[in-house]
Amino acid sequence: MNDAPISGLYQPSLALLTDLYQLTMAYGYWKNNMHEREAVFHLYFRKAPFNGGYAVAAGLALAVDYLQTLRFSDGDITYLASLTGSKGTRLFPDDFLAYLADFKFTCSVDAIAEGTVVFGNEPLARVQGPLLQAQLVETALLTLFNFQTLIATKAARIRDAAGPDDAVLEFGLRRAQGPDGGLEASRAAYLGGADATSNVLAARRYNLPVRGTHAHSWVMAFDDEKEAFAKYADAFPDDSVFLVDTYDTLDGVRHAIEVALAMRAQGHELGGIRLDSGDLAYLSKEARKLLDAAGLDKVRIVASNDLEESLIVSLKQQGARIDIWGVGTQLVTAYNQPALGGVYKLAALRSADGQSWDFMIKLSEQQAKTSIPGILQVRRYQAEAGGQPRADMIYNVAAEAPLPEAPTILDPADATRRRPVRPGAPYRDLLQPVLRQGQLVQQLPTLVESRAHARQEVGALDPSIRRFLNPHTYPVGLEQGLHEFRTQLMLDKRPGRAV
Amino acid sequence: MNDAPISGLYQPSLALLTDLYQLTMAYGYWKNNMHEREAVFHLYFRKAPFNGGYAVAAGLALAVDYLQTLRFSDGDITYLASLTGSKGTRLFPDDFLAYLADFKFTCSVDAIAEGTVVFGNEPLARVQGPLLQAQLVETALLTLFNFQTLIATKAARIRDAAGPDDAVLEFGLRRAQGPDGGLEASRAAYLGGADATSNVLAARRYNLPVRGTHAHSWVMAFDDEKEAFAKYADAFPDDSVFLVDTYDTLDGVRHAIEVALAMRAQGHELGGIRLDSGDLAYLSKEARKLLDAAGLDKVRIVASNDLEESLIVSLKQQGARIDIWGVGTQLVTAYNQPALGGVYKLAALRSADGQSWDFMIKLSEQQAKTSIPGILQVRRYQAEAGGQPRADMIYNVAAEAPLPEAPTILDPADATRRRPVRPGAPYRDLLQPVLRQGQLVQQLPTLVESRAHARQEVGALDPSIRRFLNPHTYPVGLEQGLHEFRTQLMLDKRPGRAV
Repeated sequence: MNDAPISGLYQPSLALLTDLYQLTMAYGYWKNNMHEREAVFHLYFRKAPFNGGYAVAAGLALAVDYLQTLRFSDGDITYLASLTGSKGTRLFPDDFLAYLADFKFTCSVDAIAEGTVVFGNEPLARVQGPLLQAQLVETALLTLFNFQTLIATKAARIRDAAGPDDAVLEFGLRRAQGPDGGLEASRAAYLGGADATSNVLAARRYNLPVRGTHAHSWVMAFDDEKEAFAKYADAFPDDSVFLVDTYDTLDGVRHAIEVALAMRAQGHELGGIRLDSGDLAYLSKEARKLLDAAGLDKVRIVASNDLEESLIVSLKQQGARIDIWGVGTQLVTAYNQPALGGVYKLAALRSADGQSWDFMIKLSEQQAKTSIPGILQVRRYQAEAGGQPRADMIYNVAAEAPLPEAPTILDPADATRRRPVRPGAPYRDLLQPVLRQGQLVQQLPTLVESRAHARQEVGALDPSIRRFLNPHTYPVGLEQGLHEFRTQLMLDKRPGRAV
Repeated sequence: MNDAPISGLYQPSLALLTDLYQLTMAYGYWKNNMHEREAVFHLYFRKAPFNGGYAVAAGLALAVDYLQTLRFSDGDITYLASLTGSKGTRLFPDDFLAYLADFKFTCSVDAIAEGTVVFGNEPLARVQGPLLQAQLVETALLTLFNFQTLIATKAARIRDAAGPDDAVLEFGLRRAQGPDGGLEASRAAYLGGADATSNVLAARRYNLPVRGTHAHSWVMAFDDEKEAFAKYADAFPDDSVFLVDTYDTLDGVRHAIEVALAMRAQGHELGGIRLDSGDLAYLSKEARKLLDAAGLDKVRIVASNDLEESLIVSLKQQGARIDIWGVGTQLVTAYNQPALGGVYKLAALRSADGQSWDFMIKLSEQQAKTSIPGILQVRRYQAEAGGQPRADMIYNVAAEAPLPEAPTILDPADATRRRPVRPGAPYRDLLQPVLRQGQLVQQLPTLVESRAHARQEVGALDPSIRRFLNPHTYPVGLEQGLHEFRTQLMLDKRPGRAV
């Protein structure tokens, strides 16, 4: 069978992977001749997931792939031509569809590198270009950034719980939200700190280390457990991990030991045993004793069964003797918070005469949903150059007044909380140019590089921000001038009704 | 641009969409010449999701598509040949890979139709055929059935909460677990009872109704809200729904009314308004009053903002005047339980001489994880033929003793709870032949038919089983002979250690 290309992430065209309203708005802008007006949108989330203190940015490489290959196929156009409204008339006229058929994404994108630690309200990506284009990509960008960032963050927490010496294996495909939920979860889990996946297609597509043991059914297919282990060892003499809980866990460990000693007599070593049910703290300690007493101290113990970061911490505190953590459902679905609420908001639009920027704000009934106007950048101040991050400042690179040499950062939820920045404090600006007029202007890091970056970034955070229960809040605020400008816009847009 | 085919669900080959251990076990069976031994596996979940009383079966059509197109591509084989073990030697030899290159799925599959109401421990699918083949497809089948059943069930609950007169729109793509999490969620949501989706690609692929409104950014892109509404109405004079909460919701309603009256003067009617934040009960009632006072009683009110079944019930109890429920994140991620824990267990294997069946059981440390041996069928007894279901009985179609005319059903968690079946009680057997030697033997229902079936099935359940809080437990048990056989196998496999 011929091999379909797998270099591009998605086949077929993903141009229709969007909400219908993106297309109806696109038609509206086009019809009103506003489609070329230059606009600026920011993609950000409001609150780190899992009641945690941070998130790990992810999704950029997938987003760039999507943006660079974004085309409406003939079939897409035919489908859109078939859509009708309530009166049975066509939703989209031919001349607009002809415009879509020639569509190419030519915006500029600035973004925070994958693996970087990020916080609420910070733009992970800024899209600047023709209004129609920048709007049209909203849904797909959110889908990609939201899920990747969510899973990379979950993986970073699990990695942190397991500690530097233990291995973390992701094997969640069977409980993932669809095949692609599985594929992309494997990518993000690796980026966030997992060491390998069981998902072979993800391993092939993203060049990930792939690992596995065997299932209960393998044991059940033989007359007894010892025979099952021996036959598996026969097939994989240097790569066997025996699942020991099909009938009785500690009996299973004893059978594994018998086979391991027979393997040793043939010049091979058993890699490990796997516990998949029961009291993992108790059973791992008992299994370790049995293995050590048999001279099998190098045989590692793999554990699985709905593991997540808090359970791993608890098992470690109980002295569990687990070397390798197999995490599935909880990781690939981000079980305790299965969605990141990222949003994509218009923040600036060229004036009709093209001479200046109009800055935009969205209010809504919930204050936390109020957006930030401007063309935004995130400046991360550090204790020393390259050192521990101290505070992040969101500022408007297109503000009328230049940024003060020693700016002040205000908490947007409580403007009385202020942090003056000392003059000369070292910093880096997190958003970096990625696309200019649709063309890639920097080579993106490899997944291995992004994974190393994530480990370094999380490692640099103060432990109080990394802890799982009630983490310390890392200071993120608005530059004072931006805060005041935003407040004025809020008052202008909603003067208030008399009581 | 040419159109890639979208009839098959997945491009490229999904043969590698599996856990590595499926492939290592396949090699082990092949090497031991056990790969052609006839085996029977069942796919089932243990507990209905969301602490609910039932689930809606879904995923079969996708599974059939996967099984019928399952081939290892040249690239897949090359990739597998590149995998090495701990000593750097190849994991899979060439002769086994040559076997995989010729692989076709030739098992038989019996399954419960999509849209059917199902309960814990009932096989949704039974796969019978060569051990290697039936094992190899485990992971992908679980991925498909678990997620589809999960989302169809969530949608059925939301549909139930909204009631028969209101519309339910799914627009969760931006918070879905990856693009395909979004695509498949849209399919399952429709199957379970949603009326339409915002996801254009899902609509194209699965022929679903597609709907949408506009975003806050549309309003922000114009100088004022009224102009924004008027321009949208200009583009879609008969298909406009105005989002009214960009600045101030009730002011937004007033602006919508002004534009709606101007539209009416031109011979058009506003379709609806959408509320996306704030107190939806209060705001919908106030909006209704304003609309009705302006003679716009046909303008419908759409609400969105993290809606799910309990919140919909609460809003209805508060007298909210909402006609159309827009559900996103909570539906497409099944937020309060984002994974269904379906499993796939070996239950029977032909004896080595091919003359009889050996029945298998898996024990583990947790009693709820103990599997059911046999070749299983689910018989649903009804009050009258075609009427309300009364109890389900799982039985072994390959048992030595024939099924008694009036069997007894035992609760596997408490064998003292028994239900005798009255002679002649009407029933239907839920598992029906789908594939025989890999070939489709029944035309699968269309998605529209499966959706209607789901509505009928959920509607036939007693309300005590449909309720969200502490639902009544529908009786599902084992036929007495099967229960006794299983108990004997458990005792045989784990005689117990002396205290």
